[in-house]
Amino acid sequence: MRELELLSHIYRSNPTLPVGVTIPPGDDMGAVTLGGASVLVTVDQVADGVHVDLASTPIEKVGRKAITRNLSDVAAMAAKPVGAVAAACLPKGFGQDMAKALFDAMHASAESFNCPLIGGDISMWDQRLILTVTIFAEPDGIDPVLRSGAQVGDVIYVTGQLGGSIITLDDPPGYTHHLDFTPRIDLARKLAADPTTRPRAMIDLSDGLGLDLPRICEQSGVCAQLDTDRLPISPAAHLAAQRSGQPAWQHALGDGEDYELCFTAPPGTLPDEVEGVPITEVGRIVAQRPGSRMTVHLPDGTLADTAGLGWEHLG
Amino acid sequence: MRELELLSHIYRSNPTLPVGVTIPPGDDMGAVTLGGASVLVTVDQVADGVHVDLASTPIEKVGRKAITRNLSDVAAMAAKPVGAVAAACLPKGFGQDMAKALFDAMHASAESFNCPLIGGDISMWDQRLILTVTIFAEPDGIDPVLRSGAQVGDVIYVTGQLGGSIITLDDPPGYTHHLDFTPRIDLARKLAADPTTRPRAMIDLSDGLGLDLPRICEQSGVCAQLDTDRLPISPAAHLAAQRSGQPAWQHALGDGEDYELCFTAPPGTLPDEVEGVPITEVGRIVAQRPGSRMTVHLPDGTLADTAGLGWEHLG
Repeated sequence: MRELELLSHIYRSNPTLPVGVTIPPGDDMGAVTLGGASVLVTVDQVADGVHVDLASTPIEKVGRKAITRNLSDVAAMAAKPVGAVAAACLPKGFGQDMAKALFDAMHASAESFNCPLIGGDISMWDQRLILTVTIFAEPDGIDPVLRSGAQVGDVIYVTGQLGGSIITLDDPPGYTHHLDFTPRIDLARKLAADPTTRPRAMIDLSDGLGLDLPRICEQSGVCAQLDTDRLPISPAAHLAAQRSGQPAWQHALGDGEDYELCFTAPPGTLPDEVEGVPITEVGRIVAQRPGSRMTVHLPDGTLADTAGLGWEHLG
Repeated sequence: MRELELLSHIYRSNPTLPVGVTIPPGDDMGAVTLGGASVLVTVDQVADGVHVDLASTPIEKVGRKAITRNLSDVAAMAAKPVGAVAAACLPKGFGQDMAKALFDAMHASAESFNCPLIGGDISMWDQRLILTVTIFAEPDGIDPVLRSGAQVGDVIYVTGQLGGSIITLDDPPGYTHHLDFTPRIDLARKLAADPTTRPRAMIDLSDGLGLDLPRICEQSGVCAQLDTDRLPISPAAHLAAQRSGQPAWQHALGDGEDYELCFTAPPGTLPDEVEGVPITEVGRIVAQRPGSRMTVHLPDGTLADTAGLGWEHLG
């Protein structure tokens, strides 16, 4: 069972959304209108054994990731975080000290992104830890950037570097990208606020560029052509490639959990970096082709379709 | 470890809430101001083995409860639901059909209370099913009723009947209260909209009157005196008492999962029923006494303190 099939089912089964729903399910955040104000919402889970390994991860980093995973969705809309609620189901024997450390970390992370925790629910069970965080946000003067705005001829960009997100590095010491990344909220809002740099479509890279970029294409009715030799491959992806024997570009494309942004914009409008974060051109938007959302120029000069290259959560 | 201690920790560690947080953590819902509009938020979990037993419960009722548990919090604020997001962590092997039935049920329940699902997150793991639903709501012309407004001299009321919520009844056939209850949203909004019936303080009964009423008292700085012989004891609580050998009033006070409302109001202002739902006077608010939030007049005429009478989730 694939997550996408299920999500599609959810969306299909809600054909008559009320008038107040301004961004329907299927984007990084949904949105409703409340008393004339637009409220964006997203929810994400961090489960022990799936998104984190509690046995080998400091509890502070677990709490941080529960917040930052969601904030990456906020960044993908170029929205401004407003507040969060957190639900935790703790394993029996988790202990009061661990629980406090966990919530302290969620609090501190949330506050550091101006997104206070304003409520929660705590249960306990004989299963593993799971944290579910819901964050709401507001446009605050910047129209949300949807997945559906990509146009033929757009350049495809990614922020930062890709791949190897679960590899722990010595430089900086102890850094593991999927636990330590910075949601690209400020960068996204800076780009989106300026008409000359505003992305036409944007998504955050949680499942890997190979799976997430086709989602932009599906929503926009276009196709992507990606150049593997342009991918900003992270040092961790190179390390992963040494260990796996696979090419580093495959790690960059398929590892997932980069929490960088992928977006499209008209040619010639983007700087090479924003606030110290590199912005790299990785391909072009082309016309829709039946049965394909993305093709990849491989290093050997051949062209490949990419169905299944990405890392779908638990696919 | 008790849920309350942990929640207290969360609230204490957030002393400097931003200006936009109009209802801080500690009530049935939190609230923030967004673009001039007030948005109320609540989150609740339904975990297999804790809040439902998947092996013996139709999946449709599991999905329904994930929505209605939250809507009971909306009722407790006299708010109007606006939308929901749902996160699910499914056990491996759960199956596509079960997953679809689950989401269909969540959808149908949400829609039937005018609270469309507008987003979600689905993961899968080798642990049990857990559903986390976040609902947001708006005042829509009715100021939220907080837990903190109870005054000395107020009458304490409950809606419906209490106790035995996990007992399945033959009349109506197959009815199990904790799975089939109706969140008291309409009733709450009707009472709260009319100045002559507006509750001063309100909470929904999830952990049992014996634990939930003291929460009103704590937030209001008062004490409750409860008459056990006034409690509206449900037929299921009588059945539970036959099986357990404990008095039925103890089941009404401590079983939990009633999802009825408890509220306080000035004497002489409340009807006996609203929209077919009985409203029963069960006690009075009295002045705060050191170390006690609630005393109970027992059937034998004695007065008891009630610390620990309620059923705290997983305490």
